[in-house]
Amino acid sequence: MTTDLTLAPGSTIGILGGGQLGRMLSLAASRLGFDCHIYDPSWAGPAARVSAGQTNSAYDNVDAIRAFAKHCDVVTYEFENVPAQSAKMAASAAPLHPGVRALDVAQDRLKEKTFIRDIAKVPVANFEPVNSVHELRRAVKHLGLPCVLKTRRFGYDGKGQYILRSEDDIAPAWAAMKDAPAILEQFVPFRREVSVIAARGVTGETAAYPLVENVHKNHILHTSTVPASGDGGAAQGLAIQIMSALEYVGVMATEFFEMEDGSLIVNEIAPRVHNSGHWTQDAGCVDQFELHIRAIAGWPLGDVVPSHAMLMTNLIGDEAESWRTLADSPKTFIHLYGKKESREGRKMGHVNQIIGPYPA
Amino acid sequence: MTTDLTLAPGSTIGILGGGQLGRMLSLAASRLGFDCHIYDPSWAGPAARVSAGQTNSAYDNVDAIRAFAKHCDVVTYEFENVPAQSAKMAASAAPLHPGVRALDVAQDRLKEKTFIRDIAKVPVANFEPVNSVHELRRAVKHLGLPCVLKTRRFGYDGKGQYILRSEDDIAPAWAAMKDAPAILEQFVPFRREVSVIAARGVTGETAAYPLVENVHKNHILHTSTVPASGDGGAAQGLAIQIMSALEYVGVMATEFFEMEDGSLIVNEIAPRVHNSGHWTQDAGCVDQFELHIRAIAGWPLGDVVPSHAMLMTNLIGDEAESWRTLADSPKTFIHLYGKKESREGRKMGHVNQIIGPYPA
Repeated sequence: MTTDLTLAPGSTIGILGGGQLGRMLSLAASRLGFDCHIYDPSWAGPAARVSAGQTNSAYDNVDAIRAFAKHCDVVTYEFENVPAQSAKMAASAAPLHPGVRALDVAQDRLKEKTFIRDIAKVPVANFEPVNSVHELRRAVKHLGLPCVLKTRRFGYDGKGQYILRSEDDIAPAWAAMKDAPAILEQFVPFRREVSVIAARGVTGETAAYPLVENVHKNHILHTSTVPASGDGGAAQGLAIQIMSALEYVGVMATEFFEMEDGSLIVNEIAPRVHNSGHWTQDAGCVDQFELHIRAIAGWPLGDVVPSHAMLMTNLIGDEAESWRTLADSPKTFIHLYGKKESREGRKMGHVNQIIGPYPA
Repeated sequence: MTTDLTLAPGSTIGILGGGQLGRMLSLAASRLGFDCHIYDPSWAGPAARVSAGQTNSAYDNVDAIRAFAKHCDVVTYEFENVPAQSAKMAASAAPLHPGVRALDVAQDRLKEKTFIRDIAKVPVANFEPVNSVHELRRAVKHLGLPCVLKTRRFGYDGKGQYILRSEDDIAPAWAAMKDAPAILEQFVPFRREVSVIAARGVTGETAAYPLVENVHKNHILHTSTVPASGDGGAAQGLAIQIMSALEYVGVMATEFFEMEDGSLIVNEIAPRVHNSGHWTQDAGCVDQFELHIRAIAGWPLGDVVPSHAMLMTNLIGDEAESWRTLADSPKTFIHLYGKKESREGRKMGHVNQIIGPYPA
């Protein structure tokens, strides 16, 4: 192979999905001289309004996807629920990074957990597939209480989840799944949630940011703090192990539960840039958005060692109004997504704050 | 006055000019949740390709300018040669920042020098207006040799300038002006060139970055280093003096010659973001593009104290090809402008490097 895998500035990067992640990917790509083309069912969403072009059609319109991808030098996505047929169509017309396999695994909790445990050989909580209330009853017996029932697909920010604390919860838990295929997971008594944002390039090189500690509020990420206390090496190693097993290209987020004894269990992976990596934008290193663009464009991954310890706080719904005070705070960086309408629970922006030097 | 001068995120910022400065202003505005609309005679230039809207028409088409400005919540510009009538038209349809007066002064070296010396009371080199070879001969007698003849308008990057070292240079110098109104300036034996990037807000508050030391190559800015050695307070004070005299709103660049004895003489001002402020993008503070947007949107100016000492190097013409090596360097940030065609002397991008802590 003597092919130059490096995309030159001026090339067009296609992004499936037009929300804030696509917007920040586009802004980062623009810094490097790339043009971005956004595929989004809605017209002029957050990403399209900062990009050179947009295609407005449904995610399952494979003809529109093909026409879009033909026009791009590389295609990526900002969300993991791109329909499989559409992903395959895109991949047939342009390089698709991360690839179809990463999407396939990340779209289905059962496949994801099975892959991580059996192929990548990385610890996850015990789990069983559940397709009926009968299977649920049996799985609860096997795994013990408490445990968590989750839809296999389309869950995010705590949606599609039900915690079972007694056998009385079995019937309502199953009803909450609305007959969707589900997975029962052992409830893990973790002491904190941490994540690793890392990237793998087209020739297999990897780069990982320091360990992130995440705090959720109402099942939505509230803050990310970097560096998390303790040594992040083990978590970084596990994240890279999963990326390598997937022959992954791009940025991937791996969310972990950290047990009382310090051991790590993977909660889930996201085959994309991730909310818990937003702090990188103002940390004095290549940020996760540029890192993803570099990885999928075949560039060197660059320097991911932060210059600062950081605190990222999400601005949910009306919290975005706090820009007025935040704008006057030292070492504080505001990021707003240009969403026209604020709704309860909607991610409107985030704020990054320098909280110290890195390394300490 | 109880009017809230603060523009909310979601508002539309109009930018006259569609090159790299407009592009980086637009990217900064997007981070704060603003939409940008670009006015550019060319279709899909560097700025328009990262912005929500564009108007393509000539800069002297006052009807197009009015229609454009009516659609914007505030209008600004990336270059100082906006025709006076167009600026006035824009200002009649939307707030224009910086205002018509700043443009008027900055467009004409004679007005600029006179304003700075007589109104702002800030030192400049001795100068005289020159409208004929006869007046040039007389001015050379008054100011002495060497001296520099410059067109009053439209000069940049050393274009429209002629250094006179002997009386034999008078005839060719005047010929080089092609009958354009000119200004003769005493040649100043400076030891280095420094600049101040500063901003003034709608309510008169000011903010200034540390002093920048600039090195030119072939009359084009080559590097900016921050902080420049020595105390920048005097230069910052003079820059703010000029901004206050102009009742200026937005970011302004003031270029100085620093004499052997440390005293300062203003070379010129630019009523806009400036190449010698590009280092701010990766310095761990609000950058000059966001600072300008904050100022014209009535936001708090924010924190302009860098976290790092920085070196900015312009990538001119083919130098932009060095992105391949630069992308693999530590603490190095690449910015490319998305220009389709590289030409000799054309600014294609720049690179910012962290060279130490700030303060030292």
